[in-house]
Amino acid sequence: MDRLCIQYGLLVRFCQNVFASYGFTAEQAKTITDVLLQADLYGIESHGIQRLVRYHDEIRRGMVVIGAVPEIVHETAVSAVIDARQAMGQLAGVQAMQLAISKAEKSGIGLVAVRNSNHFGIAGYYTKMACDRDLIGISMTNTEAIMVPTFGCKAMLGTDPIAVAMPADPIPFLFDASTTVVTRGKIEVHRKKDAPLPTGWALDAQGGVTPDAALVLDNIINRRGGGILPLGGAGELLGGHKGYGLALICELFTGIMAGGPTANHLSSVAPTADISHCFWAIDYGLFGHKQDIRANFSAYLRELRASARAIGQERIYTHGEKELERCRMIKEQGVPVNEKTHRELEQIGRDCGLDPAEYLA
Amino acid sequence: MDRLCIQYGLLVRFCQNVFASYGFTAEQAKTITDVLLQADLYGIESHGIQRLVRYHDEIRRGMVVIGAVPEIVHETAVSAVIDARQAMGQLAGVQAMQLAISKAEKSGIGLVAVRNSNHFGIAGYYTKMACDRDLIGISMTNTEAIMVPTFGCKAMLGTDPIAVAMPADPIPFLFDASTTVVTRGKIEVHRKKDAPLPTGWALDAQGGVTPDAALVLDNIINRRGGGILPLGGAGELLGGHKGYGLALICELFTGIMAGGPTANHLSSVAPTADISHCFWAIDYGLFGHKQDIRANFSAYLRELRASARAIGQERIYTHGEKELERCRMIKEQGVPVNEKTHRELEQIGRDCGLDPAEYLA
Repeated sequence: MDRLCIQYGLLVRFCQNVFASYGFTAEQAKTITDVLLQADLYGIESHGIQRLVRYHDEIRRGMVVIGAVPEIVHETAVSAVIDARQAMGQLAGVQAMQLAISKAEKSGIGLVAVRNSNHFGIAGYYTKMACDRDLIGISMTNTEAIMVPTFGCKAMLGTDPIAVAMPADPIPFLFDASTTVVTRGKIEVHRKKDAPLPTGWALDAQGGVTPDAALVLDNIINRRGGGILPLGGAGELLGGHKGYGLALICELFTGIMAGGPTANHLSSVAPTADISHCFWAIDYGLFGHKQDIRANFSAYLRELRASARAIGQERIYTHGEKELERCRMIKEQGVPVNEKTHRELEQIGRDCGLDPAEYLA
Repeated sequence: MDRLCIQYGLLVRFCQNVFASYGFTAEQAKTITDVLLQADLYGIESHGIQRLVRYHDEIRRGMVVIGAVPEIVHETAVSAVIDARQAMGQLAGVQAMQLAISKAEKSGIGLVAVRNSNHFGIAGYYTKMACDRDLIGISMTNTEAIMVPTFGCKAMLGTDPIAVAMPADPIPFLFDASTTVVTRGKIEVHRKKDAPLPTGWALDAQGGVTPDAALVLDNIINRRGGGILPLGGAGELLGGHKGYGLALICELFTGIMAGGPTANHLSSVAPTADISHCFWAIDYGLFGHKQDIRANFSAYLRELRASARAIGQERIYTHGEKELERCRMIKEQGVPVNEKTHRELEQIGRDCGLDPAEYLA
């Protein structure tokens, strides 16, 4: 897998023009691009530019509805449910978090659930929106089933990420993690490298732990059973039932609260994605003087980073640090893509009437 | 470790009389007993009757203040901060969750943070209170530091449990899990059995993975370093940074939001425990018709329980099932205690002017 680097500014222009070519407004194209490339800036490549090919496909076959107008179907001073009407997930997501933020600014808290949406990129994008307004942000989404419950052999839950952001100085706390041990992207990387999977990542169709990445992916694609393990691994010895429960909490606050399907009823090859999300914003001024709270939290994060390191370790991180450092690096050095992704981008450019050489050279 | 069984009703009477003997009112003694023994009923023995000796000690040396009146120091329609004034954790906890519930019933949601409290038992007791009122309950608590952050070798976070409960039929969803791989109690059981710890449970003082339970406990007690790993284990390979982040979220919503110390500043041998908790109640009617939401969630839990099992496995559980089955069994067969605990209970009884033979035979 040779890696090429594309200049960040060029990739932004490329994506905006690609999305505009589908019929999105310039403003919408800008928003979608911003969410998409934030993943690359944070180093979460599985959710970044390499996924453009998937969006390209979903938009062209009508799974994503251009011009869809999400509708608020239920609302109180502290909550709302939005039917996204199969809109682009990033557009539904940004609109929903903006609504949660405005409720939090008026009522102290805003809980917004969204149904009938599409894949929305990284959950951490939306929590950062709240964080930038000096609020706590929480976001979750369900996805097509890929996680096998403890003692099971069939995927019944999604990767089911939970993201939480809280302002702090000098580095905010930006937590964004799937409740699976790893995401599908990491299994794919192992298959490409022909490397065995670490014990505790994935199960075969009979529910046995397997190191075979190709087998796991093939079983997932053909729905033969097996899948990725919950955080904590197989069985209960290392807490797999905890990761399973955290995923169930994600399904509760997304599919169930939004009135949409749960992971086991979603399919990426169905006519509609029907994904559900949730977006919570909390004004931490509900709990006292914001300056004091923020200072106390910042101090704790500093204590963690400065705490004693295990032998052989150079650094203890708090969540968000690696991402913000990576962000600066990518903006300077460009977005790395592998050859396959580069070829896909060239084809997408041509499909959309753009000259790939202008952006991707 | 021989095991004896004490009849549940006798143990209830014993505990109530013990707590009354310290100066708690009959009502308070009943509440504390109810929280304490719920842990045994759920099979979480580490937090049940075997911990009475610790409360006995904490009360006698004044760490727990009898007659303390927790004070609301900050309040809005959707939130409150309570200074527990070193009250018994169970009393502060029940009062705080009652306040969260009453706010949820009026405003749709109630977020209550508590500081200057003591150990409050199992987080799941309080979420079940909300669940019994047909609300979602969330509860967390910080504890003395015992979790080592990823790449570290010094405990900086607590066991930091997160509990979430949601009504469902016929079995509610009752999730209650520490964000460590295991709790200290399980390490203690391995020491007693002289059994090696599974890889991925605990670290020695230098931050290396160790199977030596006695060493780990000795290091913790003498603050030499090391401790229990976050859910996901050592390093990042199996997601240890996720468990670490979840614990940080628990510290954020407890110590930081309550205005109390974080885990690394708590000590079980200090004059005051200064533990912080949080209690959230959410009316899920915020998101639509409660009957529909509850029915959809119940259906999903049934699908999970009925989903395909891994080879060799007899059953897939949803969270709360095992606990409620155990509850019925204990009420019939009695509460199992080991010989050491039995001797401790006899001594506590004598200290409190009770005749142990009357309750513990």
